[in-house]
Parts: sequence; C-alpha cells; structure tokens
Amino acid sequence: MDKMFINHELVDMKDAKVSIMDRGYVFGDGVYEVIRFYNGKTFKLDEHLIRFQNSVHGIDINYNFEMDIMKSEIDYLIKNSGYKSGYIYAQMTRGVGKRDHIYVGKELSKPQYIVYAVQEEERPLEVMKKGIKVLLTEDMRWLRCDIKSLNLLGSVIAKNEAFKRGAKEAVLHRNGYITEGSATNVFVVKKGTLYTHPANNLILNGITRLTIIDIAKELGIPVIETPFLVDFFKEADEAFTSASVSEISPIIEYVEVINGEEIIREIGGGVRGDITKSIQEKFGEKIGK
Amino acid sequence: MDKMFINHELVDMKDAKVSIMDRGYVFGDGVYEVIRFYNGKTFKLDEHLIRFQNSVHGIDINYNFEMDIMKSEIDYLIKNSGYKSGYIYAQMTRGVGKRDHIYVGKELSKPQYIVYAVQEEERPLEVMKKGIKVLLTEDMRWLRCDIKSLNLLGSVIAKNEAFKRGAKEAVLHRNGYITEGSATNVFVVKKGTLYTHPANNLILNGITRLTIIDIAKELGIPVIETPFLVDFFKEADEAFTSASVSEISPIIEYVEVINGEEIIREIGGGVRGDITKSIQEKFGEKIGK
Repeated sequence: MDKMFINHELVDMKDAKVSIMDRGYVFGDGVYEVIRFYNGKTFKLDEHLIRFQNSVHGIDINYNFEMDIMKSEIDYLIKNSGYKSGYIYAQMTRGVGKRDHIYVGKELSKPQYIVYAVQEEERPLEVMKKGIKVLLTEDMRWLRCDIKSLNLLGSVIAKNEAFKRGAKEAVLHRNGYITEGSATNVFVVKKGTLYTHPANNLILNGITRLTIIDIAKELGIPVIETPFLVDFFKEADEAFTSASVSEISPIIEYVEVINGEEIIREIGGGVRGDITKSIQEKFGEKIGK
Repeated sequence: MDKMFINHELVDMKDAKVSIMDRGYVFGDGVYEVIRFYNGKTFKLDEHLIRFQNSVHGIDINYNFEMDIMKSEIDYLIKNSGYKSGYIYAQMTRGVGKRDHIYVGKELSKPQYIVYAVQEEERPLEVMKKGIKVLLTEDMRWLRCDIKSLNLLGSVIAKNEAFKRGAKEAVLHRNGYITEGSATNVFVVKKGTLYTHPANNLILNGITRLTIIDIAKELGIPVIETPFLVDFFKEADEAFTSASVSEISPIIEYVEVINGEEIIREIGGGVRGDITKSIQEKFGEKIGK
C-alpha cells in the first residue's frame, strides 16, 4: 500500500515526513502498536487498541481515543492495500515543539499519529516447524518494558547481536532471570508445565502471550507465570518465542558468548516439542486457519 | 537562526523534515550531542565531537567522521545565527529504511546527520547563585547511559515528574545509589571532599563533569569517583548538578515521594556552599568569564 494516515489524513507514504522537532525523533517520546491481519481480518484488534491506549496514557500523552475512527482507518488501509496477510503499524508521539525534556506547560503540537499497513507472509510455517536459534544476552533495556515505547535501541542492539551470531532472536536475562526476547515473549516447557515471566514492568504483556496462556488453559496445560533462571531455560524440555507477526517460534538452539567464546547448545533435543506444536495448532484455529 | 544543516546541506529549519521511516523516529536509533558556545566561541568542541563519534560508533553506526566539515558547519551556524550565546545541537540516526529491528545487511540510507544552533542566555547566574530543588526518584533508564542516545523517555518522564513537584531536575538512584540527574551529572561535597558516580555504563561521562574534576584538582579539592547512597546525598554538606547548558547548579533542596506523601528537605542548609561557589568561579574563568 502506498498510502497511510498521518493525523487522520491520507497521504502518500513516500511523502510521509515529520518535523525534526517531533519529540518522537528527538527523545523517542512516543509509543507504537503492531496488529496482525489474516485474510483481510485483524486478529484481537480491540486488545491491541486498548493496549495502545494504555501505552499512550502510560507516558502521559493526553489524547482522546476515537476508537471508531481508528478502526475505520485500519479497515480502509487493509481493504485498499490489496494485501491478503500483513500487519498494521500504528505510532503516536507526543508532538512537535522546541527541544526541551519538559513538556508540561510547553507549546507543543497535538500528538502525531501515524498508521499504515505492511505486507507479510500468510504464516511463517517453515520457521514454526523447524524452530530458531537464539542468542542469550543481558537485558540492557529500561525498567518500563511494559510500555510499548519507541525507546527500542536496547532491543535493536540485542537483536542485531543475535543476527551477527547466526541467531534469529535475542533472549534476554536480567539479574540471572530470563525476561523476554528483544521483540517477543519467551516460554519454556518443563515436565508438562508452561513457564513464562510474569507481566510486570520488565516485559511487554504480549497479546499473543495472553492468547497462549488462554490456549494452555484450554488444553489443560498448567501455566506458571514466574521469573525463571537462565539455567532453567537451558535445561527446558521445550522453549518458544511469541509475537504478533512471527506467532510461535520453537527455540531449538541457543548461542551464548562467554569470555569471547561462542557456546552453542541444543534445547529440547534440537526439535520442536509436542506441547509447542499443540499450542501452535490451537493458535492456528483461533486465527481461522 | 532559521537555517540548519541536514546531511551537510543548508535548509530552512521550518522545512526541516525527515521520513517517518527514519530509524531515529521508529526506534530512537541514534545519538546526539549538545555543545555550548559563549561569545560566539564553542567550549570544549573537540571533546564533544570525540564523544559524539564514540556515541555513533558505540551503537554500531558506520559513519566516516570528517571533523573539519563538521567544525566548519558549526562555525557557520554560530556566525550566522547572530546569537552571542547558545548551544549547538547535533544528532545522527542510523538511516531510513523499511521498519525492521535488524539493520545488518539491510537496505538503508546513509546515516542522517542534523545540526543547528539554539540561542541561550549568557550564563544562568541567578540559578547558579540561588540553587535548585530536585526530585529524588528511581533511575528507570537502560544500562547504557554512557551512550548519549536518543532513547530519552526515561529521562523525559523523570524530569517532568520533577517539574510537576516544583523541582528543576530529577536526581536518579538505582539500587539505592545516586547515579546522575535526568540531564545532568550529580556531585556532592562531604567534609571537603567531592564525590561523584564513576563513569561506567550507568551515567553519561559529561564534559562539564570532567571539567569539574579537573577544576577540583587545580583547587586542591580531593575527588572520589564512587557510587554513594541516597542517604549520603541527603546528608551532604553541598550538592550540585552539572551540564553543558545549565553549567553548575547548587542543589539546595530535595523532594521525595514516600507512600504518596511529599517529603521536602534542605541540603547544605538550603544555600549554595563555598566549595560549589569556588568551582563555579573557576569554571567561569575557563569559559572566559
């Protein structure tokens, strides 16, 4: 799709520009949301828009959410994109004004809202089956990872470090505990029980994460939301990441750098586990596949 | 000044725009620098440009620094601004490309470099004498505060929280230790000795901070670079913040919120201390005042 909305106005994407004084550009002072659609239909749209609203209000941006308008724009973008499958990217920054950390009481434009559609393959079936290698690395991010903010440099650095090591994702640990991936949540299976980090300030409470917890309950798989140690992750029977676009990716191998040396080990025997597979299948049903 | 340089091209500031796909806008994937000038002359320009270069390379942006060109642009901006006193703001982002955490091997424009001049009062003499109130609050930022990155939301939130409490700056603490301010370094004086957090990954190693350490040595004031506890700060004989634009601001009062209740206390008897004053004076000499 070559068009997008900026502040509810339809513009050509190639002309889509913002002021260098937009606080998103200067401070990363904004939040975003990624909403998957399959066969032209969004998945969990309400949940995503509510989270978006929470992110916006979470950083004290004063914006009156008109859900109907936002939904009709998303609808327009999907219909006119011609993409069968893809995702919606939505972003809001605090506004444009003279560079100043202080925004309270300052002269500032209204919040800048952009939204556009991106084409994406129907489902990453190959990866879902074969699984991925991850890099285990320290979580350097801030302490409000529950807000889906534009301050993503920590994630960017971690993910590119993973990429350079031949891994698809970075799995992060803070003070010895696995938190989440650079752009995913992380689950492990041990003796038939599913474990994931609790939804506190250290992780983003993913919509896919919540869907997986629901699925586990439906399948009778016990779920424990608790911090777990890096060793617990390494010795897991199964492990996987979750995110709106990549869905559920089995983790079959990890790489870790200790004293400059790469250590590579399998997880769960290097193949997708049965519980992971059953959750993927149920997830497929939920998205209408 | 109504003109600035974008990628070494002189443009009108009001037309200065970037693509919504600039990674600075999407990920805060960039760094910046603030360089003070007095009477049309920059202060510690080389030190700032070297730090800028270190920030750029610190986040793995591949950019060939042509110091001469950068300096001549800064020179042009100051000369043509008509501002006697002010600062140069320089920023570099990784480039423009399809939104993707991964940049390695991806199609991306060259790094985007912007630089402009801002007018500022000659020196904040009133504040330098009277001092400021600060908010004591938790340091929520990432673990690479040594890089002067655009991921400034943690600082923005802290500083606005301070502002709402009638304070000028937020003084941050992590795990019980004072790190620095939201946009300043923090020093305390106790029994004639100057203390400040060591220049590790938890603080930005300010050029003004380094200048103050030099000054203390010249004045025969012992300097200890060590983490110190919040209580040590509260019981300091003197305390001050430092930054390129605001210079040295005595901290004469702090506010802290405990169980929703504001606690306000003086520091150093609520007035600027003698050692702070002597450092300010020596700093004034260095900048030619």
